[in-house]
Amino acid sequence: MGMIGGGMDSFIGDVHRKAAAMDGMIELVCGAFSSTAEKSKASGKNLFLPKNRCYSNFEEMIISEKNLPENEKMDFVAIVTPNHMHFSPAKMALENGFHVVCDKPMTLTIAEAKELEELVTSTGLLFALTHNYPGSPMVKQAKAMIAHGELGKIRKVQVQYLQGWLATSVEKTGQKQASWRVDPTKSGIGGALGDIGTHAENLVEYITGLQIKELAADLGKFGKDRVLDDDGNILIRFENGAKGTMSFSQIATGEENNLAIRVYGEKGSLEWHQETPNELVTRWLDKPKTTYTSNGNNLFPEALTASRIPSGHPEGYLEAFANVYKNFALHVNVKLQGNRIENPDYPTVNDGVRGIQFIYAAVQSDKNNAAWTSLK
Amino acid sequence: MGMIGGGMDSFIGDVHRKAAAMDGMIELVCGAFSSTAEKSKASGKNLFLPKNRCYSNFEEMIISEKNLPENEKMDFVAIVTPNHMHFSPAKMALENGFHVVCDKPMTLTIAEAKELEELVTSTGLLFALTHNYPGSPMVKQAKAMIAHGELGKIRKVQVQYLQGWLATSVEKTGQKQASWRVDPTKSGIGGALGDIGTHAENLVEYITGLQIKELAADLGKFGKDRVLDDDGNILIRFENGAKGTMSFSQIATGEENNLAIRVYGEKGSLEWHQETPNELVTRWLDKPKTTYTSNGNNLFPEALTASRIPSGHPEGYLEAFANVYKNFALHVNVKLQGNRIENPDYPTVNDGVRGIQFIYAAVQSDKNNAAWTSLK
Amino acid sequence: MGMIGGGMDSFIGDVHRKAAAMDGMIELVCGAFSSTAEKSKASGKNLFLPKNRCYSNFEEMIISEKNLPENEKMDFVAIVTPNHMHFSPAKMALENGFHVVCDKPMTLTIAEAKELEELVTSTGLLFALTHNYPGSPMVKQAKAMIAHGELGKIRKVQVQYLQGWLATSVEKTGQKQASWRVDPTKSGIGGALGDIGTHAENLVEYITGLQIKELAADLGKFGKDRVLDDDGNILIRFENGAKGTMSFSQIATGEENNLAIRVYGEKGSLEWHQETPNELVTRWLDKPKTTYTSNGNNLFPEALTASRIPSGHPEGYLEAFANVYKNFALHVNVKLQGNRIENPDYPTVNDGVRGIQFIYAAVQSDKNNAAWTSLK
Amino acid sequence: MGMIGGGMDSFIGDVHRKAAAMDGMIELVCGAFSSTAEKSKASGKNLFLPKNRCYSNFEEMIISEKNLPENEKMDFVAIVTPNHMHFSPAKMALENGFHVVCDKPMTLTIAEAKELEELVTSTGLLFALTHNYPGSPMVKQAKAMIAHGELGKIRKVQVQYLQGWLATSVEKTGQKQASWRVDPTKSGIGGALGDIGTHAENLVEYITGLQIKELAADLGKFGKDRVLDDDGNILIRFENGAKGTMSFSQIATGEENNLAIRVYGEKGSLEWHQETPNELVTRWLDKPKTTYTSNGNNLFPEALTASRIPSGHPEGYLEAFANVYKNFALHVNVKLQGNRIENPDYPTVNDGVRGIQFIYAAVQSDKNNAAWTSLK
Repeated sequence: MGMIGGGMDSFIGDVHRKAAAMDGMIELVCGAFSSTAEKSKASGKNLFLPKNRCYSNFEEMIISEKNLPENEKMDFVAIVTPNHMHFSPAKMALENGFHVVCDKPMTLTIAEAKELEELVTSTGLLFALTHNYPGSPMVKQAKAMIAHGELGKIRKVQVQYLQGWLATSVEKTGQKQASWRVDPTKSGIGGALGDIGTHAENLVEYITGLQIKELAADLGKFGKDRVLDDDGNILIRFENGAKGTMSFSQIATGEENNLAIRVYGEKGSLEWHQETPNELVTRWLDKPKTTYTSNGNNLFPEALTASRIPSGHPEGYLEAFANVYKNFALHVNVKLQGNRIENPDYPTVNDGVRGIQFIYAAVQSDKNNAAWTSLK
Repeated sequence: MGMIGGGMDSFIGDVHRKAAAMDGMIELVCGAFSSTAEKSKASGKNLFLPKNRCYSNFEEMIISEKNLPENEKMDFVAIVTPNHMHFSPAKMALENGFHVVCDKPMTLTIAEAKELEELVTSTGLLFALTHNYPGSPMVKQAKAMIAHGELGKIRKVQVQYLQGWLATSVEKTGQKQASWRVDPTKSGIGGALGDIGTHAENLVEYITGLQIKELAADLGKFGKDRVLDDDGNILIRFENGAKGTMSFSQIATGEENNLAIRVYGEKGSLEWHQETPNELVTRWLDKPKTTYTSNGNNLFPEALTASRIPSGHPEGYLEAFANVYKNFALHVNVKLQGNRIENPDYPTVNDGVRGIQFIYAAVQSDKNNAAWTSLK
Repeated sequence: MGMIGGGMDSFIGDVHRKAAAMDGMIELVCGAFSSTAEKSKASGKNLFLPKNRCYSNFEEMIISEKNLPENEKMDFVAIVTPNHMHFSPAKMALENGFHVVCDKPMTLTIAEAKELEELVTSTGLLFALTHNYPGSPMVKQAKAMIAHGELGKIRKVQVQYLQGWLATSVEKTGQKQASWRVDPTKSGIGGALGDIGTHAENLVEYITGLQIKELAADLGKFGKDRVLDDDGNILIRFENGAKGTMSFSQIATGEENNLAIRVYGEKGSLEWHQETPNELVTRWLDKPKTTYTSNGNNLFPEALTASRIPSGHPEGYLEAFANVYKNFALHVNVKLQGNRIENPDYPTVNDGVRGIQFIYAAVQSDKNNAAWTSLK
Repeated sequence: MGMIGGGMDSFIGDVHRKAAAMDGMIELVCGAFSSTAEKSKASGKNLFLPKNRCYSNFEEMIISEKNLPENEKMDFVAIVTPNHMHFSPAKMALENGFHVVCDKPMTLTIAEAKELEELVTSTGLLFALTHNYPGSPMVKQAKAMIAHGELGKIRKVQVQYLQGWLATSVEKTGQKQASWRVDPTKSGIGGALGDIGTHAENLVEYITGLQIKELAADLGKFGKDRVLDDDGNILIRFENGAKGTMSFSQIATGEENNLAIRVYGEKGSLEWHQETPNELVTRWLDKPKTTYTSNGNNLFPEALTASRIPSGHPEGYLEAFANVYKNFALHVNVKLQGNRIENPDYPTVNDGVRGIQFIYAAVQSDKNNAAWTSLK
């Protein structure tokens, strides 16, 4: 694996490296970690990388690695830069024959997203988008239960992603994570919408297996001088007639990382909270509340195989993230042997397109005073 | 106290009686419990009432009691009938000099609601609407914390009231509670909206001290052949610029009585769940999560006085309901002595008007595909 | 019902009155509420009792009521005094033909306890001991599940009752509840042991249907100058070979009323917490965790009939307490008609004897450095 | 790092490898993974190790590595075998100049434990015992709060470690994890006592900073034909006068990995549950309940530095385990530079001795019908 972005000040770069390393299947062999050559090389040195594989920029890395012998060069690229720096390296990597792991949201525009989608199709290369929450065992159990019809037809959904870290103007204090996220040239047209709203959108579509058809969005800009949304409330309608609400925020004071979902079907319902990820609560017409646990009793295989340690031994954010990498690496290995997995269990370039369509629909709806707007 | 409705098949009549009796301040002295004289008298007999004060209908009761000596006749009327039978007895009681306790939603129409409001003003009589949740000690603590500015300016709200008991067509099985609630001639233009949506609306306005300015409602009719909503998702905007979501349902399979609220201010936030009513969770910019408990440490007096037993000894639905009656009875006593409480702590006829305005706004918004609609 | 004790300063008197009144089956008709005639009459007046039935002392009450016409006199006596004042009025009431409700622990000595037990047998009168926790619906569900063999043979038990209100020397501040509880002349030989340890002992025997055979107790006296225990840790062994721990405390700083029990059988286990009484968590060899709720799905009739309102509407301490009174009152009514309930569902004089035996065994064990001591 | 044990059938070997790898500070360079040379080499191959560093047995590994150039040879040995195979390799490693990481319980006998302790002293080498739970950020916060006196003098402790996986005779089904644990030649004189009781003992001493002075143990052997305990209930007394209970079990049906601790001081108390490790609940004399979260507000530095990702992003078992390795690796690095950390934050050989003393005291107490027995 070669990494683009994720230098010393980055939070998410380290997460990607830990996640990729967890199962001993992926080795970091090179990187272009920062916007300056100097910083990039310093970061690489800290990571015990050989000097000659700490590149000044992503273009240099892609070209150089391409020319290395097959058994030496990186197998794929992981792009962990701010949003505005996803598209170019992803495109160049694909054009030069490298599989891609890319952070979300995938691009700044729908056109870019579709261009990547077409490139993936035309090259036959693999592309993973690092929505990490689908990597959680209990999320996989939720998805499997609905897919097997245990809840019956889905009628109602609630999804929320609540954080409070932008409740004050931290972007004015030099906090790097905050400053690029509130800057539309780096973040795109969505603020919290792109940063965490897309996680909510992805999670609800992943678990239910349903697509959001249209939405009515009321976005908020509560932080002083903010030009991008830092809060949003959205009505959603699904293709099958189900309805629901989505709520996200980065000004929900005191919330840490409160991603949660409830799904109600005709026969049963389920509830999952990211902050206590090892439990999945289900409720029923005519049975008591039943709580599934990671690696516990009566799970579907999809959920069981996503755990590494016995039930009761909590796994968390990094382990879910690592499942995305693990499943992607497995696919890369299968690909190396000339085969292909039909339905790989990690978010793909198609999920990336959905995410950008979601952002654009929500922003457009908000501009029209929350008028219903289709995702397309 | 004289009771109208609440005969043998009623659920809520018994709740009102237990709540009214809890503090030994209110005695049930007469009633017109059912739609037929016979059933009414049988119900009264079961309640150990003297025969002559078990009336055939509410008109008879009001006239007869009016003519009893001052120290014998009922002090006030409690109306616990289905929605369509609130207005007439409430109006007649007020016109004949009786204070009124009335179940919610107050009336079927805004005009009726305003007529009662005017009657209360012109007669100077007391009127309590039995939204019981404001009677919960931790709800009072929540209201007090916000009123004292502890959370700072309110920015975001989530409120939900989720039940699952109408997930199947129980109204077709002869279940009496269900059958009148899905019948617009008895329930009014709102289904779940009137039955529990109004609780959510009342709770959020009570706690925040803010009024909902406008809403965008997407109602659902998921049950077979239902003509009234059994589910709803609503965007709300408050007069002060705060935004939020409301979600209610009676088809949320497996949910029992999941009323919950979250309020986010600039400095802190709070969260309360009716099913575990003795805890109030608060979160802060710069302090750890703090959980207040009923009759526990550091409460405001408004919350402390709402508990009857030491902290850790759970009080629930009936005790909260009883607080509405207790505060009303205290006011009646003050009134008997010729005085008046400035801000009595129970929902009043004004809350009743708000509730009906809320129902009408939501139904109108839903008809207009969730267009923003003001409460008025 | 006539009440002995429970005057104006009392906490538990008011609890008894509210519990007795809840179902409209029991009326307070007289009382000897305090140690002085004056206070007793003042208390009675506050309770709207007629002057002539506010007695100066319990002897006067029992004699006077005995001589009233059958349809006027009290049906039974409720004794809600501190521990040292249970035996004499209970004995006198029984000797004069009155059924008795008595607070726990029943007496100060085993001899007294056995004397009451014999009196109950010889008179055929009814006797309820107000351990209230067996009145909780989920406790009844727990008992029923074990009785029906759902958990298999019981192997292990944990029970705890943790409070913190005596963590400081509140008895020196004039707090009346504290001062008599730390005084052996009023409390007996057990402090926290008698006050709450007996609740734990009763709960574990009620739920499991097993008797504690022997125990090894390590009591603590942490509060300054305390002569009675305010904390205890006990190993317990049951007649069937099961083992376990009991822990109780009134110096567990910050705990409110944390009574909790876990029972492990060969096939499953259960867990109940008094502070969230409407849930019963069960765990299984080969099924996911299942949580029963009051008045919810799949309950045994014993549990269902103990709820008054729909699932999701929390009932608490008073409602559980009221179930003891309700079941006792039902039995009194059956008795009035000349019949008798075989296994009445409220704690009886036999539970009272067990409680005192438990106190004595624990104190003796503690004196012998936690040597194993049988209950007898 | 070179690994002894942890071959293909092992659970804990993989845990150690993932934990050691997490922070990119430790590289697995060699191993003697199994009891047979063939299996060992196969395991090493799966781990991408060069053939010549997959050794046939630990003796070969220690000798061979000792003779490698300084910059090639392993820095330390990780011993992850069943209990009976800890002592010999640990001793040999120390005698040949290698630092040691060793699984718990450290040895089979007190004599062995003390021999290792002396070797560590005499050689000046580093020794980490992998009790992983002290690696949890909230455990470190708990320890720091007590060390800083926030809870006041400690009076009461509850600690439990409940599992249910041996509730049936799984050792008879060929389950390898079970079969060695119930075999005294491999496990030592303690069953569940050694396997998880020692975790409880270590946790309570780590958090409180107090030593258990004496204990009274009632062990159980509930599983058919078991010769070692699979359950235990223990009274404990601390050197400072505090008292408490310990309960552990591997036949607590349905429990997964329920390690939990409560500590009560004169001013406050705390509660931590391993299954929800990112919360630390604290309760106070005169403040509401306060819940600290990993990487959240108001933590001590010791707790803050133990988190890798932002608050609300759950870290679990592996991350806590990795903290033991990280702190050990930091110490190894400091040592390489000729220095030494005064109070390294990982369990050491002294904790290993405590653990074995605890096992022997508990077994002896149990043989004497739970007589008080000192740890020594």
